[in-house]
Amino acid sequence: MSNADNLGDLTIGDLGEWRLIEAFASRMPAGSNVAIGIGDDAAVIGAPGGQVVAAVDMLLEGRHFKRSWSTARDVGVKAAARSLADIAAMGAVPTALLVSLAAPGTLPAAWALDLAAGLAEEADRAGAAIVGGDTASGDSITLSVTALGSLTGQAVARSGAQPGQAVAVAGRLGWSAAGYALLAGGLGSAGGFDGAGRLGDAGRLGKAAPLLAAHLRPSPPYSSGPQAADLGATAMIDISDGLLADLGHIASASGVAIDVDAAALDVGDVLAAAADRLGHDPLSWVLTGGEDHALAATFPTGVELPSDWRVIGQVRGGTPSVTINGTPFRGPAGWEHFR
Amino acid sequence: MSNADNLGDLTIGDLGEWRLIEAFASRMPAGSNVAIGIGDDAAVIGAPGGQVVAAVDMLLEGRHFKRSWSTARDVGVKAAARSLADIAAMGAVPTALLVSLAAPGTLPAAWALDLAAGLAEEADRAGAAIVGGDTASGDSITLSVTALGSLTGQAVARSGAQPGQAVAVAGRLGWSAAGYALLAGGLGSAGGFDGAGRLGDAGRLGKAAPLLAAHLRPSPPYSSGPQAADLGATAMIDISDGLLADLGHIASASGVAIDVDAAALDVGDVLAAAADRLGHDPLSWVLTGGEDHALAATFPTGVELPSDWRVIGQVRGGTPSVTINGTPFRGPAGWEHFR
Repeated sequence: MSNADNLGDLTIGDLGEWRLIEAFASRMPAGSNVAIGIGDDAAVIGAPGGQVVAAVDMLLEGRHFKRSWSTARDVGVKAAARSLADIAAMGAVPTALLVSLAAPGTLPAAWALDLAAGLAEEADRAGAAIVGGDTASGDSITLSVTALGSLTGQAVARSGAQPGQAVAVAGRLGWSAAGYALLAGGLGSAGGFDGAGRLGDAGRLGKAAPLLAAHLRPSPPYSSGPQAADLGATAMIDISDGLLADLGHIASASGVAIDVDAAALDVGDVLAAAADRLGHDPLSWVLTGGEDHALAATFPTGVELPSDWRVIGQVRGGTPSVTINGTPFRGPAGWEHFR
Repeated sequence: MSNADNLGDLTIGDLGEWRLIEAFASRMPAGSNVAIGIGDDAAVIGAPGGQVVAAVDMLLEGRHFKRSWSTARDVGVKAAARSLADIAAMGAVPTALLVSLAAPGTLPAAWALDLAAGLAEEADRAGAAIVGGDTASGDSITLSVTALGSLTGQAVARSGAQPGQAVAVAGRLGWSAAGYALLAGGLGSAGGFDGAGRLGDAGRLGKAAPLLAAHLRPSPPYSSGPQAADLGATAMIDISDGLLADLGHIASASGVAIDVDAAALDVGDVLAAAADRLGHDPLSWVLTGGEDHALAATFPTGVELPSDWRVIGQVRGGTPSVTINGTPFRGPAGWEHFR
């Protein structure tokens, strides 16, 4: 079969495990650094620096996505992005993904293949190949995605931040949380994006449409990770729990305090418009919204940062903590559900 | 908390994700080739040969294990062994595991930590460290285990077998299938092994006890994989689907025929006794039983094989096929359920 449109009403149970894997494999980009890909006992991938970076993340229906909000392609993009962002956050270049999928036999085959297309699309965007996987029949849709990456220099851990250094961010903050709020408020319709990546609601939502996109298909700034490593970043993290929470992880691991400069956090027109519409504080999305998979890093003083990186605060000595303009953040109670 | 015995009636829901991960992490062996392990965005593992070998396998309750047959520790051992065997089958040395676990919040915390102990035990036996993971609340227990390995020489794929070469096997064949048959026949009791790795049924089952062990806790011959690669093996596979099926994968990938010498397949006393008890043909377990995770490989003529490797057949030219003494195998209908 050449594409999902030819599958009609077939389920993955009709297709069977082998034909499903074959169909998956035929949709996967082959990577230039993949010596052996799907089809053998294990894959063999280049690790030119003599080290491999590896992370795994799960995505479960009901907990991490709803089929009424996300297309299969959206789910594939998100599952891949979550794991790939962890690789970039170490300063590494993504090379490969391995994907486990448990799903009911009644799942439409077209849905499964669109999921594969989403995984492949995001892997390709990050420069990675899909090199292996496993499928099994389960009660609900459970994805586990392992991402691998290669390092050219040193890995950037969470623990190297030093007092006096600058705290900077690459990528958007709060957009995914705002998109979630719009969907939860009934302001985005079901179905997400069509196959071509167009959002059905774009017209109706106007300016807010990219926020739905940000929630359904996060777009981590992969290349900013290795770029930060090259610039001498001393600590880095993927912002998955929210800016303050993830800066807190750097603060704890490094034994430092971090102070954020509120004036440096640009809320922007798009977030402001959505916040207006929902009666929400846009700054709380920026500070506490997770799932954008932006990157936060600390840099030695004097490093000139390229435009992807915006300085938003300072590392200080003292008990590990995160403050805004010197005081702890007391956000509205409502934001907890994004965590 | 220092061990599972202190957890009383706590569930993983009571424990919460962070404390569960902490408890997991504290039980994990640190590997000598692990630069960064659990606790950062991603792990960093040595890949001294400039290549990394990677495979993923899922283990689902109901499909791959039953809590009435297997202890949590058994499940951990089996989940790790399945993925690690794929690494050895490429001729690689296992280095690391990443583990995803979805489970209901009502799962006893002690069960989850015994699972972690089983994973750690088998990783340690293979020389690998557990370097990362993810947990999520799901309807049933779903494990996905990614194994990584390092190569010192060339990877051994399935596709290099040549006519005239010897076919050899390392590890046991048919023991897991026989153990399964004993359990399915009600001849092994629930509970598997106790915490110290002792099988409750050992006394009652006598000679057959190691067969239950083989099914509940497969013990792949990890070191035989890199050993075969060093000896110049031309093709290799992990026997997970059964000897004939997996030799069939080598035959297809290499474009060769494989003939097995029935006389070289030593059934042995233990299998014979169990087959007697169940009125089964022990040879069909050897030929078609999967899940022992033995290794099959092909070697150039003239290679002197060490005692781990037993020659069981020959590679021939012609249409890809697997025969026994020159004729196709027609096994009893009953064996299909082992596949």
